[in-house]
Amino acid sequence: MAKLNIGMVGYKFMGKAHSNAYRALPMFFPDRITPTMKAICGRNTEAVSAAAEQFGWAEHTSDWKELVSRDDIDLIDINAPSNAHKEIAVAAAKAGKHLYCEKPLALSLQDSRDMLEAAEKSGVKHMVGFNYRFAPAVMLAKRLIDEGRLGDIYHFRAWFLQDWLVDPDFPLAWRMQKEIAGSGAHGDLGAHLIDMAHYLIGDIKEVIGMSETFIKERPLPEETGGLSATSGNPSQTGPVTVDDATLFLARFGNGALGSFEATRFATGHRSTNSFEINGSKGSVIFDFERMNELQVYFTDDKEDVQGFRRVLATDPAHAYAGVWWPAGHPIGYEHTFTHAFVEFLDAIKEDRQPVPNFNDGVKCQQVLEAVEQSVKERKWIDVSSL
Amino acid sequence: MAKLNIGMVGYKFMGKAHSNAYRALPMFFPDRITPTMKAICGRNTEAVSAAAEQFGWAEHTSDWKELVSRDDIDLIDINAPSNAHKEIAVAAAKAGKHLYCEKPLALSLQDSRDMLEAAEKSGVKHMVGFNYRFAPAVMLAKRLIDEGRLGDIYHFRAWFLQDWLVDPDFPLAWRMQKEIAGSGAHGDLGAHLIDMAHYLIGDIKEVIGMSETFIKERPLPEETGGLSATSGNPSQTGPVTVDDATLFLARFGNGALGSFEATRFATGHRSTNSFEINGSKGSVIFDFERMNELQVYFTDDKEDVQGFRRVLATDPAHAYAGVWWPAGHPIGYEHTFTHAFVEFLDAIKEDRQPVPNFNDGVKCQQVLEAVEQSVKERKWIDVSSL
Amino acid sequence: MAKLNIGMVGYKFMGKAHSNAYRALPMFFPDRITPTMKAICGRNTEAVSAAAEQFGWAEHTSDWKELVSRDDIDLIDINAPSNAHKEIAVAAAKAGKHLYCEKPLALSLQDSRDMLEAAEKSGVKHMVGFNYRFAPAVMLAKRLIDEGRLGDIYHFRAWFLQDWLVDPDFPLAWRMQKEIAGSGAHGDLGAHLIDMAHYLIGDIKEVIGMSETFIKERPLPEETGGLSATSGNPSQTGPVTVDDATLFLARFGNGALGSFEATRFATGHRSTNSFEINGSKGSVIFDFERMNELQVYFTDDKEDVQGFRRVLATDPAHAYAGVWWPAGHPIGYEHTFTHAFVEFLDAIKEDRQPVPNFNDGVKCQQVLEAVEQSVKERKWIDVSSL
Amino acid sequence: MAKLNIGMVGYKFMGKAHSNAYRALPMFFPDRITPTMKAICGRNTEAVSAAAEQFGWAEHTSDWKELVSRDDIDLIDINAPSNAHKEIAVAAAKAGKHLYCEKPLALSLQDSRDMLEAAEKSGVKHMVGFNYRFAPAVMLAKRLIDEGRLGDIYHFRAWFLQDWLVDPDFPLAWRMQKEIAGSGAHGDLGAHLIDMAHYLIGDIKEVIGMSETFIKERPLPEETGGLSATSGNPSQTGPVTVDDATLFLARFGNGALGSFEATRFATGHRSTNSFEINGSKGSVIFDFERMNELQVYFTDDKEDVQGFRRVLATDPAHAYAGVWWPAGHPIGYEHTFTHAFVEFLDAIKEDRQPVPNFNDGVKCQQVLEAVEQSVKERKWIDVSSL
Repeated sequence: MAKLNIGMVGYKFMGKAHSNAYRALPMFFPDRITPTMKAICGRNTEAVSAAAEQFGWAEHTSDWKELVSRDDIDLIDINAPSNAHKEIAVAAAKAGKHLYCEKPLALSLQDSRDMLEAAEKSGVKHMVGFNYRFAPAVMLAKRLIDEGRLGDIYHFRAWFLQDWLVDPDFPLAWRMQKEIAGSGAHGDLGAHLIDMAHYLIGDIKEVIGMSETFIKERPLPEETGGLSATSGNPSQTGPVTVDDATLFLARFGNGALGSFEATRFATGHRSTNSFEINGSKGSVIFDFERMNELQVYFTDDKEDVQGFRRVLATDPAHAYAGVWWPAGHPIGYEHTFTHAFVEFLDAIKEDRQPVPNFNDGVKCQQVLEAVEQSVKERKWIDVSSL
Repeated sequence: MAKLNIGMVGYKFMGKAHSNAYRALPMFFPDRITPTMKAICGRNTEAVSAAAEQFGWAEHTSDWKELVSRDDIDLIDINAPSNAHKEIAVAAAKAGKHLYCEKPLALSLQDSRDMLEAAEKSGVKHMVGFNYRFAPAVMLAKRLIDEGRLGDIYHFRAWFLQDWLVDPDFPLAWRMQKEIAGSGAHGDLGAHLIDMAHYLIGDIKEVIGMSETFIKERPLPEETGGLSATSGNPSQTGPVTVDDATLFLARFGNGALGSFEATRFATGHRSTNSFEINGSKGSVIFDFERMNELQVYFTDDKEDVQGFRRVLATDPAHAYAGVWWPAGHPIGYEHTFTHAFVEFLDAIKEDRQPVPNFNDGVKCQQVLEAVEQSVKERKWIDVSSL
Repeated sequence: MAKLNIGMVGYKFMGKAHSNAYRALPMFFPDRITPTMKAICGRNTEAVSAAAEQFGWAEHTSDWKELVSRDDIDLIDINAPSNAHKEIAVAAAKAGKHLYCEKPLALSLQDSRDMLEAAEKSGVKHMVGFNYRFAPAVMLAKRLIDEGRLGDIYHFRAWFLQDWLVDPDFPLAWRMQKEIAGSGAHGDLGAHLIDMAHYLIGDIKEVIGMSETFIKERPLPEETGGLSATSGNPSQTGPVTVDDATLFLARFGNGALGSFEATRFATGHRSTNSFEINGSKGSVIFDFERMNELQVYFTDDKEDVQGFRRVLATDPAHAYAGVWWPAGHPIGYEHTFTHAFVEFLDAIKEDRQPVPNFNDGVKCQQVLEAVEQSVKERKWIDVSSL
Repeated sequence: MAKLNIGMVGYKFMGKAHSNAYRALPMFFPDRITPTMKAICGRNTEAVSAAAEQFGWAEHTSDWKELVSRDDIDLIDINAPSNAHKEIAVAAAKAGKHLYCEKPLALSLQDSRDMLEAAEKSGVKHMVGFNYRFAPAVMLAKRLIDEGRLGDIYHFRAWFLQDWLVDPDFPLAWRMQKEIAGSGAHGDLGAHLIDMAHYLIGDIKEVIGMSETFIKERPLPEETGGLSATSGNPSQTGPVTVDDATLFLARFGNGALGSFEATRFATGHRSTNSFEINGSKGSVIFDFERMNELQVYFTDDKEDVQGFRRVLATDPAHAYAGVWWPAGHPIGYEHTFTHAFVEFLDAIKEDRQPVPNFNDGVKCQQVLEAVEQSVKERKWIDVSSL
């Protein structure tokens, strides 16, 4: 199989990011399966038609059920709002389609488990959209840990700081409505941190968290989708039903300590998605705003020249870096998706599950929900109890 | 009163730092009261004698009781190990001496309250050694908050990261023994973070924490004091009875969220004592390893040039900076103490309590203990309940 | 005209970068003219055929003369080695094709003038590949200068530091052969700095330079193209006939002082393409390895919060940033080309010359040659004398 | 000889810095010779009397001739304005006093040679105030070079950027008057860079430079000294007779290329005194505003973790660092002087010339003057021709 037909549900921020990755793939990874951008789906016919043309999809539809039942579609890419994930994924799985689903997998742990079950039952390949794993600098961190070059891990601290909600007049977009988004900063940003922790450190044993909604009422938007929202009548407001910020402490299965913070109220931070890991033999620090870099420290450096190194993960020695530009030439956010799809296509070719897959989505959901429970019950929650 | 006679108990790391500040004061703050380095006290006569000569103290003694009862001593500076603070402070207070005491004030909240009570009863001035408040860059953060230039505060996150215990062969110094040090990273490093939070944000309402001792047995030292320890027989080991790392979440009285981490296992960090504050109008970031700098962000900057500024707090516009060197010339760690003593001397001259004083020491101890209780009981603790 | 047919000569590093930009354009700039990737040309038929397929060109040829004479080609994009630029450009101009030519325009000032003359005579649009102008952070610097927000300019210092030649066993690629490349670090890297100076500051009046070839003999390569070269027999070596590094001082027409350094021997620097500008009211600093950032300083900031700001040029307020990803999400090197082509397409649509065009290419060549003359004659050279 | 009596001429910025170092020495370097602060000298009796008291000098005088002729003075420390250096130094040398002289040694190369000759004739020890050599991070750079850990040196680039003259209303202080200061940014800031080059790289063979005075007239000051100046009548102005900025290119004896820039018009830079060195095996970068840090790169690092390390030169492994504070605790500008005096005292004890001494002062002056000549004659100057 040299080609794979894609059907995609969703056409806003993530739809654009995914489309771009599909377009880049054949050029930069010509030896991989070629994804064919068959059809895109969205509720607003006019908008999805425009998106199809702009993004380069052959066809468009406003009926996802039709899309998932088409014989000429091999893979369904779901990046509709979170509350629509489950129904689409389950139907697509039943129709035998491979599944790529944006995070968070679903609005609840139970839903995500249903999705995983459906995917496993049908035997399709499934992947979840934790794209940040695929930054070459993050993959370097993973390699250093896997090869034991950081030693035993003592600490994992991670923070995803944004500031787009600091303005109290920013309207009540769908990402602030619990029934659509599930949660706020926690599920949107925290989910990425949790997955990063799973990827780099391992299972989380127990958690305790704290949440806050700083601005409790916001103007109703006229329309909203992706990350955007346009203001309507400012005198009409509605309640923010998700968290503006959630912090939690964690203990990992391997004994490491974890600290997590996700917030949309970190003034001055547009998208600081960072982690630091301290091990017995070394440490690493990553900041997505400088996504081509990893700070690396080793205890066995000569004692007069010990210090964090700024490694540019653009050398040929780094994952995927060889296909892009010469050393020292940055790549952008978008190629975390390109790399993720390479993994998916490779997994399909090699008849294995890609990583991260729905299991990772479920595991993330489990921690998300454990944290929410710990916030509500004001006590430590054993993640495995959920 | 143009001169003030100092008697100091302790002669290791802090004794050296304090002595240096007393020596610097008359030169850089010639218009202030002159501290006279009258007598230094330590248990080891030979060592304290050498320290007296090295640091420039007129006399030395191995009997702190004699020291605090001398008529010609106006102020007792206590930087002996933490378990000795209380007895000395109470006696000195009774003898009518002003008190400067290193942090943490005592091994327990009760002890620290007794110390405060003794000081208040005798009417002396009292100060606690939270020296980091006195870095000009930190004082800039304080000014920005006090003048409302950061707006409402949403987040305070602070981390004090060191790595001197990562080596499992580092011997069991006094700072790892509960009966002398009270606690480990928590009381040593976390105490500074808590005080910084009190100084910059305000009262902490409730906390929940997590502690760990990664290396549970260490070689017994031959001798130990200050920050140093020399190894003895490596086959003889003893239990580490304090925390290597303590993290906690906090909610402030004003609604802000707090995240704290103190650890001696953050490989690669020699002394990263940092905080970040996010407010509705701006943010600041401080890192003690670059103590002359404060990162500052304002939301009302023109929209195409918004970003964190690296402010060098060495301009004449900054606190104390005018007495040192020209703009752009760094000062060192040591002058956080010099500035602290300026505050103490000014308070004495103006007949007011210096800030921070024993009340701040007690408040810090209260949070330290609330965190310890939360670790033990695995639940949120209301700080005011202690 | 909604579409424009492109014919491209060259298929290595630059050919890949240009192709990628043509592919990205219709998706991210859907309201612009759509470039159609008609035909790609290269001497090696097998290789250019593979490139055509990989990059998405409809056809390929090994005969550029045939390409430039085709009626269905509107624009010739020249990124073949520098020694081929002139012949192709002149022929394409005569055939009435718009011209995009990589820098440096030609091997000599005279050749570049001939190219400009040919382009002007035929009335086509012409553009030169100074892509770094189109990083949003660089465009912010330009805006700040144009709006007078930096005041009078006193200093421009620029350095383009690479280290790929530090290894003496790196083979003698075409970029180290004078007859093909014209010059070494000077024409390859320095050309970008000179154009940046022209773009941001203005005309250069006089220069004096210094050049060096540190490694004078290198192994002959088996094959070479783009930035790569594979080693052949290491016992066969040849002379490096270009500079490894060239530095020069400059005086601008407006009185500003300039300092330039281009080197392939700056160990540790993969591609540090940087400049700093100091004006009477502010300063900016750019580093391509962190291409989404501009450091900005203003003298009229409040005196206690003056400092360089790290501005992320990813906000909607910044040039082109709105079409990409949300604020704080980095874009990569490749989109400097995408933006450059947007400018070219817009210029064609608006019937004006794009900027930078062959005039800028000639001006750059003039300074390059003035510097070379100054190196040879060991004296200041008036740029206008050439 | 356990003590050494110091007589100091000058009591402004440098007088304060030197005094502070003498005060710090016995405490932090108790095993060294103790400098005794015998007498301070200045023309203004009232001011020098106040300085004596503030800085801790036993006596003061307004007659330097009397000072240098006293039997109880062992060392004369000269930090008066540059035009006074020679006469004092020669007289003191004749009187058999050891000499510490601030840089630049004199107003002319000839004067500096006369000073060296006088010092050599009398057999005294002589040292010149290139204090930046003594930052532990700089000493680490020196060690790395001396031990061959950077390999062959290809590049040295250095820039000393200040901005205190950007304001055109800043008055005409003595540092802007040629007859007192000799030169402007060149002699004041550039001299430090040149010495750093001599220290780290070696002899400079030839130079070519460029100078500018951006603001040619300034208000006359009411009084001026050290770095300060108070404005008098703004309607009375005088000509600035020194350079605001001087840049030059250099070729070292060992073939390395050098680039130097000294300016007081680098808006936003309070005191950025920096250098970068690129060698065949590694590179280092230093910035005085972060004086406790050295960026270090090695080519033999494993290929996937190559990058500049931020080394904090505060570990016990670093020069002098052991006597100060624990690892990670910054020291300030002032201790570059403390360390310099340690070198001087050690040299006296060991009966050898300290480094840097008047030979280094002369060598610096030679380059300063060669650059000035190259600016005037607009051509390369062979340094050895002077």
